[in-house]
Amino acid sequence: TTEQQQQSNKLNEQDEEDFIKNNYVARTLLNESQLPPITWSNWYREVNWPQAILLCLEPFVALYGLFTTSFMWQTTVFTLIWYFLTGFGITAGYHRLFAHRAYEATKTLRYILLTFGAGAVQGSAQWWARGHRAHHRYTDTDLDPYSAHKGMFYSHIGWLIFKPRRKPGVADVTDLNRDQSIQWQHRNYLSLAFFMAFVFPTLFCGLLWGDYRGGYFFAGVLRLVFVHHSTFCVNSLAHYLGDAPFDDRHTPRDHYITALVTLGEGYHNFHHEFPSDYRNALKWFQYDPTKMLIKFFKRIGLASNLKEFPQNEIQKGRYTMARKDLDQFGQSITWPKTNTDLPLISFEEYQQLSKKNDGRALVLIAGFIHDVSNFIDSHPGGRAIIQSQIGKDATVAFYGGVHDHNTAAHNMLAMMRVAVCKYGGEVEHLKRRLGHIQTPTPIFA
Amino acid sequence: TTEQQQQSNKLNEQDEEDFIKNNYVARTLLNESQLPPITWSNWYREVNWPQAILLCLEPFVALYGLFTTSFMWQTTVFTLIWYFLTGFGITAGYHRLFAHRAYEATKTLRYILLTFGAGAVQGSAQWWARGHRAHHRYTDTDLDPYSAHKGMFYSHIGWLIFKPRRKPGVADVTDLNRDQSIQWQHRNYLSLAFFMAFVFPTLFCGLLWGDYRGGYFFAGVLRLVFVHHSTFCVNSLAHYLGDAPFDDRHTPRDHYITALVTLGEGYHNFHHEFPSDYRNALKWFQYDPTKMLIKFFKRIGLASNLKEFPQNEIQKGRYTMARKDLDQFGQSITWPKTNTDLPLISFEEYQQLSKKNDGRALVLIAGFIHDVSNFIDSHPGGRAIIQSQIGKDATVAFYGGVHDHNTAAHNMLAMMRVAVCKYGGEVEHLKRRLGHIQTPTPIFA
Ligand code: HEM
Ligand code: HEM
Ligand SMILES: [Fe+2]
Ligand SMILES: [Fe+2]
Ligand SMILES: [Fe+2]
Ligand SMILES: [Fe+2]
Repeated sequence: TTEQQQQSNKLNEQDEEDFIKNNYVARTLLNESQLPPITWSNWYREVNWPQAILLCLEPFVALYGLFTTSFMWQTTVFTLIWYFLTGFGITAGYHRLFAHRAYEATKTLRYILLTFGAGAVQGSAQWWARGHRAHHRYTDTDLDPYSAHKGMFYSHIGWLIFKPRRKPGVADVTDLNRDQSIQWQHRNYLSLAFFMAFVFPTLFCGLLWGDYRGGYFFAGVLRLVFVHHSTFCVNSLAHYLGDAPFDDRHTPRDHYITALVTLGEGYHNFHHEFPSDYRNALKWFQYDPTKMLIKFFKRIGLASNLKEFPQNEIQKGRYTMARKDLDQFGQSITWPKTNTDLPLISFEEYQQLSKKNDGRALVLIAGFIHDVSNFIDSHPGGRAIIQSQIGKDATVAFYGGVHDHNTAAHNMLAMMRVAVCKYGGEVEHLKRRLGHIQTPTPIFA
Repeated sequence: TTEQQQQSNKLNEQDEEDFIKNNYVARTLLNESQLPPITWSNWYREVNWPQAILLCLEPFVALYGLFTTSFMWQTTVFTLIWYFLTGFGITAGYHRLFAHRAYEATKTLRYILLTFGAGAVQGSAQWWARGHRAHHRYTDTDLDPYSAHKGMFYSHIGWLIFKPRRKPGVADVTDLNRDQSIQWQHRNYLSLAFFMAFVFPTLFCGLLWGDYRGGYFFAGVLRLVFVHHSTFCVNSLAHYLGDAPFDDRHTPRDHYITALVTLGEGYHNFHHEFPSDYRNALKWFQYDPTKMLIKFFKRIGLASNLKEFPQNEIQKGRYTMARKDLDQFGQSITWPKTNTDLPLISFEEYQQLSKKNDGRALVLIAGFIHDVSNFIDSHPGGRAIIQSQIGKDATVAFYGGVHDHNTAAHNMLAMMRVAVCKYGGEVEHLKRRLGHIQTPTPIFA
């Protein structure tokens, strides 16, 4: 009725108000203003031009370099090394150390990671970690600076190309504010980045084997394109491709392809559940070279206090998702009818029904009456054997008296139930399967 | 007490008598006599000399041939082909067609399979199928001619080398007795086997490319050793190595290594559950060339009525075993205490306890009081934030009022429960998580 409808609507409104009152994100989104949506008429004012130019131009510069520069194997090797060094600066440095504090590092290691991380040209660690902490704190909401719900283009690179419509959600970075090395890198970021990303590779390849051009185009630009998109994939691909072995409330997913592409940051479902864990994945075959590197740092005394989430809680998450999956699988299967779904008849009625010449073949086994008409001709034990049990109680025969049927046969039988027999047919205890006939008589003495 | 003990023993005896009375296998084992165990003093009388000599000598003959015969690529190719042809005679013929009737075959195909099967020198199809049907009917018991419970040596080859201590269990082979092709092969078995296993390969390789010696040693003997042990592995390895995705009442197991070694008979757990199914495995990546062959036979009109077990029942078996596994996994995890395990205190008592300066940090969330003393310093949100909630009700804060904690945080929290708060703290409805804050504001219009 309309009155009930109105009442129900009013309750929903009340619920919504309560929710907003009690939820930080909802409240913040309502109270903070946002910039208007980007349209075809205003887009050029909403572009972050420095970042957009760098990111959109670099692949073309790299391509140009590819087509106009000869290869020297030394440069190729150095390009790979530089890819890993600057990449690890982001994964082991910016991400697991500075953003998540998943381990502790000596001053030396901090400066090393900050320097190589600068070569990945992803902003200062201060800026990067602040945004990343908001990403974890407000995952999938509008306070998440690279929310996957805004689409793969946006979460991959769009958020850097356009000016964000909102500030990212509040995140506590007081520890970073007080860190000398972080502040040093933040103050000197532009020069550091320019030097590590372009100047150093060019000079290194030039001075050592005379390949300035290759040093710039390959170890510099091309390498940077790959480092950039490796990291970007952690925000796009890792929130899209794969499964959710630990929790499926949000978008992060686990996948080995993502791992290969991102220097081992591909088990993102694990990571968002256990962000302070220094590992991205647990099994030895799950690609996580960053974890290996951190363990190596510990071995040589540069790192300590490698944080791990309690194993029990990790397994709990795994169990819960596996249970959810399995329950879903169980729903897709058709199960037998139970007592409550079937009519109750007496043994005598059962015998009467069996005598009727109506083509139906009924057999009583373990308290249920089964219509085996469609099965009797394909019975592996033969038709005659079942025929002889029509109108009788075949419990013992079915449970080993004649043949100890396997589980599949029991399951098949249960699907043929049509009634329950009062007082259950033969007594319960005959249904027990005892194991001692499995013990063989020894043949060798 | 001794009287209770005697009473209990008497009941067990009664149970055992009932069991034997109602179980065909138990009764048969008691009533049928068996030969005495094999000892060091009587073993030479208990050996099946013809079979033992063939099986124990052939590998040495093959080795001798390997070291004294030069290789011709044509012979090598033919050896491989002959391995597959005679092997398929066993798998597609003896096993899936004649023993299990998993499909129907034209007369032509039957004769072809019987002929190649003879080349595998494993007895006539009549004899082979009769034993195999007993294997399925009495799996793992003493009526199983190659029972896995007698050890891997016995189930692999020992049962052929020694005279069995018992007849195999009764198995119905009236259909085979009436089959013309089966009887023809049975009558002419020895000549057929000798011809297909040794004469034909020798002559073929000799007449076509002059390699009589290679034809005999490689395509004949060496090939036979491999065919023999491929099949033997289905009785030894397949009842030992791998997992039980469908049922674990008995020894059969699934494993891809077994599949590779046995021409696709390696998914033995599936097979024993669904023996009349013409497939040994379901997935495309599970090695089962025999299944492919049978499908091919159907394509060219030589086979028909390829039997499949109902998919629902196959999935049911899968589900049940997966559920069993998962339940076991769940047992290995430590779960939180529930209401019934915890003391009940009032909100006022909680506040009093919190005021005490005993170093304990207590926080009330969602009706439970938690001791967070050991956690407060490693809280990702910081110590102060939790400190401010000691002695208060932090439900709303924890559920999104301050931070919408992830599932792992909820699980961790639950492990810290020490008491239940009367009247549950904040009302139930505030615990609901609503999803609408995930809906993003579009940034592109
Ligand atoms: C009424 C429903 C029945 C169903 C659905 C059923 C189902 C099956 C199935 C699936 C098998 C082959 C699987 C296995 O190896 O265990 C089988 C075998 C057999 N069944 Fe039944 N059965 C039924 C009743 C009976 C009864 C009442 C008897 C005996 C009185 C019987 C005697 C046998 C025998 C002797 C075999 C062994 C055949 C062989 O492996 O050679 N079955 N049955
Ligand atoms: C009492 C037991 C508590 C436990 C076991 C706990 C646990 C956690 C865990 C595991 C995280 C990180 C995982 C995530 O991203 O969700 C976290 C983050 C956080 N918690 Fe708690 N928490 C507790 C209480 C509180 C309370 C009472 C508050 C607020 C009043 C709070 C505020 C926060 C905040 C703001 C964060 C976000 C930190 C960040 O990502 O920067 N926590 N908490
Ligand atoms: Fe993420
Ligand atoms: Fe992260
Ligand atoms: Fe078997
Ligand atoms: Fe079989």
